[in-house]
Amino acid sequence: MKQIAVLGSTGSIGTQTLDVIRCHPDLFHAQVLAARSSVEKLLEQAEEFQPRLIVVSDEEAGKKFKAAYSGPAEVITGSGALVEAARREDVDLVLVCVVGIAGLAPTLAAIQEEKELALANKETLVAGGSLVLAEAAEHHVLIRPVDSEHSAIFQCLLGQDRKHIHKLLLTASGGPFRGKSREELRHVTVADAMKHPTWNMGMKVTLDSATMFNKGLEVIEAHWLFGVDYDDIEVIVQPQSLIHSMVEYDDGSIIAQIGNPDMRLPIQFALTYPERLPSPSHQYVNWRDIASILIEKPDLEVFRSLKLAYEAGKRGGDAACAFNAANEEAIRAFISGRLSFLSIFDVVEEVLDAWQVHEIHAYEDIMAADRKARELADGAVRRLAL
Amino acid sequence: MKQIAVLGSTGSIGTQTLDVIRCHPDLFHAQVLAARSSVEKLLEQAEEFQPRLIVVSDEEAGKKFKAAYSGPAEVITGSGALVEAARREDVDLVLVCVVGIAGLAPTLAAIQEEKELALANKETLVAGGSLVLAEAAEHHVLIRPVDSEHSAIFQCLLGQDRKHIHKLLLTASGGPFRGKSREELRHVTVADAMKHPTWNMGMKVTLDSATMFNKGLEVIEAHWLFGVDYDDIEVIVQPQSLIHSMVEYDDGSIIAQIGNPDMRLPIQFALTYPERLPSPSHQYVNWRDIASILIEKPDLEVFRSLKLAYEAGKRGGDAACAFNAANEEAIRAFISGRLSFLSIFDVVEEVLDAWQVHEIHAYEDIMAADRKARELADGAVRRLAL
Repeated sequence: MKQIAVLGSTGSIGTQTLDVIRCHPDLFHAQVLAARSSVEKLLEQAEEFQPRLIVVSDEEAGKKFKAAYSGPAEVITGSGALVEAARREDVDLVLVCVVGIAGLAPTLAAIQEEKELALANKETLVAGGSLVLAEAAEHHVLIRPVDSEHSAIFQCLLGQDRKHIHKLLLTASGGPFRGKSREELRHVTVADAMKHPTWNMGMKVTLDSATMFNKGLEVIEAHWLFGVDYDDIEVIVQPQSLIHSMVEYDDGSIIAQIGNPDMRLPIQFALTYPERLPSPSHQYVNWRDIASILIEKPDLEVFRSLKLAYEAGKRGGDAACAFNAANEEAIRAFISGRLSFLSIFDVVEEVLDAWQVHEIHAYEDIMAADRKARELADGAVRRLAL
Repeated sequence: MKQIAVLGSTGSIGTQTLDVIRCHPDLFHAQVLAARSSVEKLLEQAEEFQPRLIVVSDEEAGKKFKAAYSGPAEVITGSGALVEAARREDVDLVLVCVVGIAGLAPTLAAIQEEKELALANKETLVAGGSLVLAEAAEHHVLIRPVDSEHSAIFQCLLGQDRKHIHKLLLTASGGPFRGKSREELRHVTVADAMKHPTWNMGMKVTLDSATMFNKGLEVIEAHWLFGVDYDDIEVIVQPQSLIHSMVEYDDGSIIAQIGNPDMRLPIQFALTYPERLPSPSHQYVNWRDIASILIEKPDLEVFRSLKLAYEAGKRGGDAACAFNAANEEAIRAFISGRLSFLSIFDVVEEVLDAWQVHEIHAYEDIMAADRKARELADGAVRRLAL
């Protein structure tokens, strides 16, 4: 029985992870359930999955949870609680699916404790890639990616000649605004941006798909996870989300991973690796219904997010951290109605233009860059506000 | 320096193999060149590649060759010469790319001598799969497939969980007659059938692509090479020959191998495995020119070859051997103008209908079944002759 800490259990990836665990009760147990503030959902999950530890990282929500919960699990709250959960001796595998920079500290903790690690949090690698990878190498921890694209590349590298990678081909659905001009995007709303054509995901990642900042973050993530130069990572649009990504080798051979767009597949593979068990959906790609797998180029003029991501990544140091933080602040302003969709790109560009790169030596350097970038972004949001 | 015996050096696969060897003179040397009767071509190849041994398996052609050749290599002739070549101590890797059942004996010899083995000859596994695989297991020889589809599956299985294969998805271009009705195929000629849309191959395999007997043979080959039940091998049509085949695992994840239709890629991988070196073409898939990867179902009514292959394979014993021999005879009759295109299917069906299955215990059992099936096919050809 593998004991799993699900850090972010009430989010989109978290609930789908619990679906996988539900499907294999003989193999997996949710030893830790951790959420920020979704008390009701967490109470339900605690009832069903009977964890040993429950984390509520928001203090106020923690109080509410404790008042309502009468089960046998230990309950801890506060900002340091995720790290405590990741370090627990009775946990074998830590799955980090909290949103945002909050994923970094528990990821580092899990690596230092040499846990099996499944990572669904993009910001951890985007902001702290150099630090996380150095720790992972020191502790011989293999990071199992949960993101469908990175899981795909991970799968396409198994047993292959990693010395002769020619290119990573990262696929993108293109999101709800694929094919639109800048003019057409001038007045789109949050509701428009939430209509993702293929994937069912959380709010932040869905909006990031609409801007394609998501793909930009993934390029940086791929650089760190697989040690591939930015010039050897190419984004291509595959609107049906059937090809989840590919690796091209020096001999011209491409290994691709294909599957239905169902996050439970990469989640499960991160838990069962290197084995593959029947998935919760029990569904396979239905080739009878597929007449063609569509391929397009991304529109780099409309979706400047990609260009900015490559720039930030290549500048190195804490530039990608600033890129990520600026995007988070811009998205937040868009959600709250203060910023137009197109201004999201402008905010991130302004922050990067003003950014002075510093090297990352420690966790604190990342957090400082993150704070500074958010301040800069905040200023840009105010100038560009509707 | 890896010493290679190219058995069938003047054929389509043979010349492309020499192209790969030419591209990596520091890694590979053609220690043996073997052909049946193409004296002129063999003389040229001997001059360029300076082998230590030359085989001419046709006695008459052998005499001509000896009269014309003045180089330092040893020259042997006759039907047993291929086996002698495969057994040589100064050979590391045997690449079997002779056409037809003649590939079986040198393949078995290479296995018994525990050589590295690259197999481009379909008939060896179709006719003698049980025997070849038993020998390969006993001598711990990994058969490296050269066929693009089987190389693809081989590549899609590397590092993966072979206990949890759900299905092999064998792709077919569909050949020159894809989408045609039986009526439209009634009067097609050898020249029509030789117009393959994507692959540049030898005559027999090109004609087999037109009938899709080629894909039938490949289904049987895949069954033996990868130990997968016939019911778990599915043929899908991918007209551009970009996806060379795929493996679907129990979790719903599919690993696909994609590449330009260039036989030098799978040939080279069979030589360099597990490494991947830049290919002779130095060309990569150009995603900018691909708008979609087309997928179709095979037409099992027009191309009964597939249905017959599954039948023969499932009946076991020497049925697939009869299937192969009947097809070879029918194709020969088609080439010589004695048989119509559609009657090729009828000849094979008649032979299989009349066939009494016997188990294969030894090489002689295969050769006896092969002879008997050819006699039956000959009778059918005479009855169905134009």
